[in-house]
Amino acid sequence: MEIALRWAEIAGLIAFAVSGYLEAERRGMDPIGHFALAFVAAFGGGTLRDLLIDRRPLFWIHHHEWVVAVLALSLLLPWFTRRRARPWVERAVQWPDAIGMGLFAATGTALAFDVGLPALIAVMMGVITATFGGVLVDVLCNEVPRIFRRTELHATCAFAGGWAYVGLDALEAPRSLAIGGAAAVAFALRMLAVGRGWRLPALDRGRSGIG
Amino acid sequence: MEIALRWAEIAGLIAFAVSGYLEAERRGMDPIGHFALAFVAAFGGGTLRDLLIDRRPLFWIHHHEWVVAVLALSLLLPWFTRRRARPWVERAVQWPDAIGMGLFAATGTALAFDVGLPALIAVMMGVITATFGGVLVDVLCNEVPRIFRRTELHATCAFAGGWAYVGLDALEAPRSLAIGGAAAVAFALRMLAVGRGWRLPALDRGRSGIG
Amino acid sequence: MEIALRWAEIAGLIAFAVSGYLEAERRGMDPIGHFALAFVAAFGGGTLRDLLIDRRPLFWIHHHEWVVAVLALSLLLPWFTRRRARPWVERAVQWPDAIGMGLFAATGTALAFDVGLPALIAVMMGVITATFGGVLVDVLCNEVPRIFRRTELHATCAFAGGWAYVGLDALEAPRSLAIGGAAAVAFALRMLAVGRGWRLPALDRGRSGIG
Repeated sequence: MEIALRWAEIAGLIAFAVSGYLEAERRGMDPIGHFALAFVAAFGGGTLRDLLIDRRPLFWIHHHEWVVAVLALSLLLPWFTRRRARPWVERAVQWPDAIGMGLFAATGTALAFDVGLPALIAVMMGVITATFGGVLVDVLCNEVPRIFRRTELHATCAFAGGWAYVGLDALEAPRSLAIGGAAAVAFALRMLAVGRGWRLPALDRGRSGIG
Repeated sequence: MEIALRWAEIAGLIAFAVSGYLEAERRGMDPIGHFALAFVAAFGGGTLRDLLIDRRPLFWIHHHEWVVAVLALSLLLPWFTRRRARPWVERAVQWPDAIGMGLFAATGTALAFDVGLPALIAVMMGVITATFGGVLVDVLCNEVPRIFRRTELHATCAFAGGWAYVGLDALEAPRSLAIGGAAAVAFALRMLAVGRGWRLPALDRGRSGIG
Repeated sequence: MEIALRWAEIAGLIAFAVSGYLEAERRGMDPIGHFALAFVAAFGGGTLRDLLIDRRPLFWIHHHEWVVAVLALSLLLPWFTRRRARPWVERAVQWPDAIGMGLFAATGTALAFDVGLPALIAVMMGVITATFGGVLVDVLCNEVPRIFRRTELHATCAFAGGWAYVGLDALEAPRSLAIGGAAAVAFALRMLAVGRGWRLPALDRGRSGIG
């Protein structure tokens, strides 16, 4: 289980970094932008969580080999997205992206639980870990963050995964099982939502002027 | 006085959360966006202040019942803003919003004073507490922050309130009196500014091309 | 050398603050916006670095005379940018801006080295110190950060300067010499890049739809 979680984390971080890179490339950024957005997508969520709960050193400062990996990735990816490989990269990233979302929601919740935070706050930290990197990428790209409007059950799945961890922990499941189970819940819900096009209802009163 | 301040703080936090929610609704966001913007509007300023002066745990982590309250508010508000109640909600929020601005400027200044910061920095922390939530909401909505351009004496009032606290503290006023007095100064100035349409002069040289 | 570095730091901070101010003026902001953007441009990079490596108190909280200086600058500058002096101010700022960039890259790297961070992370902290203020100004002005797209070898020069510090430190150069040398490397590279119009290659596949 431990080893499975380790590989899932690696897959998730790479998927997040690649999605940040693709966003930078789509907007015609240069290598600095490629690296910055890949980095922010991969580590932004965990960094905000650690700043909020005062946990040091930051993940990527402690494991700086990850920064090297993201740097290498952002320099190598232009070769893979050339020609017609780009749609393939975008599709290949979807699964590990959902895995990463589920796993970071679970580990974020677990880390906040470890420092004694109450359940709701811990789950919020899980959601922040899973989603804030994407929010930051959107802000840097001058967009209203997608998870606030695209309504594709992204943060909602992370929220469900966080509560699944809280439940499994209350049932005294071993830590790695609770994390794996919570990640699986978030992942399954996300895949269902993407497959069936589930969305949260959005209000559009201000614009339509009805309200 | 203590009790009055407690109630004023509650009114202010609710008003800030409602104004964040209304902004999210105006832009057609979904429930995730509603909660995120209500949360950021209510706690963004205090969170930045606490990160900058290294004060832990953060207010909303310590009092997590407040997170529950903002979550409930963001889920319930769509029912209240339906039909023709929306303009009423927007008006009802103006007063507690100004109260919150004044109070958070005063408490932010006081908290920074407590950890031994010099007066100017403490006042800046008061201004940050009172205004940064709104700045963050504007950034997340993809707007240039209104307090940098709308010039409605918003940050200016918070600034005046912070210095009022410094003055009252120097006169050895009891803490709750100093906070209440400073909040009243900021609130009164804000109400005057809104009523009379006072604004700071803005330069528009770059655009007009005269400069 | 120490004294030269001190003066270079002052020149750099002023240049950064002026460039933030000019951006605010260009967008027709009011005095609150002028001060906010001057402040963010001057201290944003160092503040993020200190938050990430948990170094307290923050530079501008410790040396709050600098906050007074930036406040005074933002109030006085409108008189200097009146009439036809504005182009002159913009040109006059270029040199100290490049000096500041080089110096903050060097000092940021040195400070991160002091707390025992590995070389790559230390260099990243140098780059953050030198460039993040500008990123924040662009975000607050509702722009995609220029250093991610304008590709004028800005972050790249800071990166080179950071590694120059690492190299000089490995050669056991005295600290002030290592900082001065690293700053000179970044500055010279920047001046070359501006003079010759060097840029990093940018990909524009997403937009052109070829890829």
